[in-house]
Amino acid sequence: MTAAAAPPRLARWLPFLAWARGYSRGDAAADGFAAVVVTIMLVPQSLAYAMLAGLPPQVGLYASILPLVAYAIFGTSRTLAVGPVAVISLMTAAAVGAVAERGTEAYLQAAITLALLSGLVLLAMAVLRLGFLANLLSHPVISGFISAAGVLIAAGQIEHLLGVSAGGDTLPGILAALAGSLGGTNPLTLAIGVVATGFLFWARTRLRPLLLRAGMGPRAAGLLGRAAPLAAVLLAILAVWIFALDGRGVRIVGEIPAGLPPFALPAIDPALWIELLPAAVLISLVGFVESVSVAQTLAAKRRQRIGANQELVGLGTANLAAAVSGGYPVTGGFARSAVNFDAGAATPLAGALTALGILAAALFLAPLLGLMPKAVLAATIIVAVLSLVDLRAIRRTFAYSKADFAAMATTIAVVLLVGIEPGIVAGVLVSLALFVWRSATPHIAVVGRVPGTEHYRNVLRHAVLTSPEVLSLRVDESLWFANARALEDRVIEEVALRPGLRHVVLMCPAVNAIDASALESLEMIADRLRAAGLGLHLSEVKGPVMDALRRSDFFAHFDGQVFLSQFEAMRALGGESGAVARPGAPEGLPPKAG
Amino acid sequence: MTAAAAPPRLARWLPFLAWARGYSRGDAAADGFAAVVVTIMLVPQSLAYAMLAGLPPQVGLYASILPLVAYAIFGTSRTLAVGPVAVISLMTAAAVGAVAERGTEAYLQAAITLALLSGLVLLAMAVLRLGFLANLLSHPVISGFISAAGVLIAAGQIEHLLGVSAGGDTLPGILAALAGSLGGTNPLTLAIGVVATGFLFWARTRLRPLLLRAGMGPRAAGLLGRAAPLAAVLLAILAVWIFALDGRGVRIVGEIPAGLPPFALPAIDPALWIELLPAAVLISLVGFVESVSVAQTLAAKRRQRIGANQELVGLGTANLAAAVSGGYPVTGGFARSAVNFDAGAATPLAGALTALGILAAALFLAPLLGLMPKAVLAATIIVAVLSLVDLRAIRRTFAYSKADFAAMATTIAVVLLVGIEPGIVAGVLVSLALFVWRSATPHIAVVGRVPGTEHYRNVLRHAVLTSPEVLSLRVDESLWFANARALEDRVIEEVALRPGLRHVVLMCPAVNAIDASALESLEMIADRLRAAGLGLHLSEVKGPVMDALRRSDFFAHFDGQVFLSQFEAMRALGGESGAVARPGAPEGLPPKAG
Repeated sequence: MTAAAAPPRLARWLPFLAWARGYSRGDAAADGFAAVVVTIMLVPQSLAYAMLAGLPPQVGLYASILPLVAYAIFGTSRTLAVGPVAVISLMTAAAVGAVAERGTEAYLQAAITLALLSGLVLLAMAVLRLGFLANLLSHPVISGFISAAGVLIAAGQIEHLLGVSAGGDTLPGILAALAGSLGGTNPLTLAIGVVATGFLFWARTRLRPLLLRAGMGPRAAGLLGRAAPLAAVLLAILAVWIFALDGRGVRIVGEIPAGLPPFALPAIDPALWIELLPAAVLISLVGFVESVSVAQTLAAKRRQRIGANQELVGLGTANLAAAVSGGYPVTGGFARSAVNFDAGAATPLAGALTALGILAAALFLAPLLGLMPKAVLAATIIVAVLSLVDLRAIRRTFAYSKADFAAMATTIAVVLLVGIEPGIVAGVLVSLALFVWRSATPHIAVVGRVPGTEHYRNVLRHAVLTSPEVLSLRVDESLWFANARALEDRVIEEVALRPGLRHVVLMCPAVNAIDASALESLEMIADRLRAAGLGLHLSEVKGPVMDALRRSDFFAHFDGQVFLSQFEAMRALGGESGAVARPGAPEGLPPKAG
Repeated sequence: MTAAAAPPRLARWLPFLAWARGYSRGDAAADGFAAVVVTIMLVPQSLAYAMLAGLPPQVGLYASILPLVAYAIFGTSRTLAVGPVAVISLMTAAAVGAVAERGTEAYLQAAITLALLSGLVLLAMAVLRLGFLANLLSHPVISGFISAAGVLIAAGQIEHLLGVSAGGDTLPGILAALAGSLGGTNPLTLAIGVVATGFLFWARTRLRPLLLRAGMGPRAAGLLGRAAPLAAVLLAILAVWIFALDGRGVRIVGEIPAGLPPFALPAIDPALWIELLPAAVLISLVGFVESVSVAQTLAAKRRQRIGANQELVGLGTANLAAAVSGGYPVTGGFARSAVNFDAGAATPLAGALTALGILAAALFLAPLLGLMPKAVLAATIIVAVLSLVDLRAIRRTFAYSKADFAAMATTIAVVLLVGIEPGIVAGVLVSLALFVWRSATPHIAVVGRVPGTEHYRNVLRHAVLTSPEVLSLRVDESLWFANARALEDRVIEEVALRPGLRHVVLMCPAVNAIDASALESLEMIADRLRAAGLGLHLSEVKGPVMDALRRSDFFAHFDGQVFLSQFEAMRALGGESGAVARPGAPEGLPPKAG
């Protein structure tokens, strides 16, 4: 099967056909280098996120092998690196923890089942073209959710730094449990944890500039900077081995079975499926949104395109691959994708090569990795997730829009105080409710003509020409059941203020639809104005709205006119004859002749 | 307390002060006549609706006395007639039936508590100015709800026509129960029921025209037409009395205790309150919407005004009055208000006089009314509610808008198949979801200038002038998280079709808001276009939107221009120089000089 022979339709479903044909030696070198860098980063992260999800460490490795190969075949991003990520790991822990006890075989099976369900949900969304559902997660909600999840994850790791078992699912719960178990702190563990955290923070922010200043090339400096977590891990393992720290109260990861991932079909358990389905849907949506945002940001930098629907297929097959190889839910991660991109990955083959690297680690490094102190893994997680906390985004959102901020603040508060899944659900519901609320309270402006043009603007904001006989109202919203009555009230109110009035023109450039309830309101307005001896007219009604009105019996009730433009309406209704400049209008600009 | 001395503020809270001052003898005569007509209509209806609610018949009378007085004091409609209505009675039966057994004292107490809660909910809505919540019930949902409730109510009364006890809460349930109990039909009851139903239908549609043709004056003919149900009731009572029909299997209403309503405070039972609260909220909303629609329709005919917030006070106190006098939830009814209006009621005093009439019936007619066959009451209900079924509204909605029809059809289906409360909740949710869906899939039009004007319209609908170098896109929706990505995709798509393009202008007269997510999308679009060597500009941005953009750092990223009008944008960007007429443009109309 060569790409040249592949029809375009096939290439759409198997995107690798598009790049495989022109694959060059240069591409191979670039992909190989990127794979080494990402593997170095991913080995400790995989173990850490598995711990975060409450799973045995090798499950993190298994989730970083086959899923990468599946995404390389079916995904459309050239540089996205999939695998276990922090937020999805926490969501997995919350969902699986609700149906099984940590540390049991049932817990592991439930996590694998969750990967299977996520894969099926993503594929179903692809088939039903439901990718737009991800649009229901607004940026402020997603951003607030990820920041809050980062705080929750970091707080949850403190117990490992202290060497105690505290637990807790909410921020107050975690803090209370920590406070209650401070007495059991293991000083050696705490020392290792604090040193590791400090080193990793330093390596993240200072190491690369330092190496560059020392004269190292940017590529080598970047690679060394990325290798710092691995160095920390290796040093810690060495310390455990030499000083037998695990015998002195330092908790280590424990035995990791070396070998291939356990290929098996997850158990089909309808009751479990039904219990896990809501969580699988949320995990799929969050994972998809996070992944597509990363993929699009990176693709835009290289003028590449992401197919949103095909991404559902890529991530769906990646999760199915995780499920059949003993893994748990995966998605595209921000940090590792950025590393992959910076390291120069040219094609998704870099991901497949990374999978080989992780496989090698699973086969040969397992006994060694088992000696790793949990405190070091916790330090890895803390340093990684605190970069997710985006205080600038919170400030920016607050400054831009109180409604967006309200949705964001709700998400953050509910995630921290109630839980991770209620948080995202609350965020979506609040953001939708605020949208409906805004649309239900429309902005309606009295407008007049900007002198010297045919353009009409708000009398409160612009120096414009108006008429005492013709009232022009611009309705800044589609008319629907929630705001129909507000329009009625406003028209009646404005009319009552103007004794000399003869006509009312509703200017409708912003009316994108009129539903059945609003149609009845319009008829009611027309009736009332007619009773008061006034004419009601419409202007700048859009094509689709006009089509709908014609389908109804509206024009049987309505005896006013529909004008193409407001300018035409004013000319026809004699609005220009009595034109007067509003206070504030620039003097010397005569009203344009009708 | 004279009205002349009442300050305007007081008159707002006590609307009767406004009409009491000028009350004339003519008003008194009109109100007295209307009260007699409505009393004649209301006595059998009150008993029937109490039966529908599963309550003792006298409860219907009690609910038609004090509440009418309360509304006369606090309500703003001059002609609204409050009391028990069909739909609210059915909702009461559903809500109370869920917490107590029919026929028990607990059932009666729960119904009284429901009236109390509805009153408190309505007053709370008035204080918090939450009257707008009623706007969430769109016309199609309300119309579908009332039609479906009418069918459900009529079906539920068939058992009384047959003289059996069938039961059932859903249409299939009722029909199955009826089918199962057909064998127990009492022929005498069936005969009475069929004759009564036929007579009432005939009286409703044919009697008045017949009397008019016979030379009777319209007022007398109307009065006699209204009295037909009372005549049927009296005849039936007479037949029961003379032939002792109750001894021959014809079920009668049974003993009605004569006397004043039992004044008492309902029991304060927090557990019961919490159970009934959701139903009380729904009953309040439905009752309020139904009542305000009726009141507004009637007020418009006489050029009077309804204060929506004060209506909440009027209906709230009416329900409290029902609760303290042994009644159940009430609201303004359509049929009786229309009768009150037609009979010439001048002021709310007509309602207070009606209350006196019902009180007289409760005091003196109770023993007589107890002999009424249930089949005749069922006939009264069936004839009343079938007029609620509005097939024309269903057809009209279907023709006008598939979205509105979908909400209506959902409401009808869920009411008939699941239940009355789930039905209205489903209707509201579906109509909101469809609104969000529509707004998430925006109409975006390529526009050009209408020759000889400064006005821009859709190239697909109008013969307009466009430019190969400047693409004008009109976005027909506010930009928010659910449609931001759709805009991105459409802009990129349209740009890809036009190789000679230099500028893109987004024309924003219909963009009423831009949320934080859409703002990021706009920045992304600007970045992409800049990368492709294209300029992005905005035109006709509204004041409130411009204010929001200025609060953000948008203009730090955006290097295009914001034009007051599309005409100005095209002039500045040289769009006029290369103007070409689209196919279909009228020949001989030269493009207006730039």
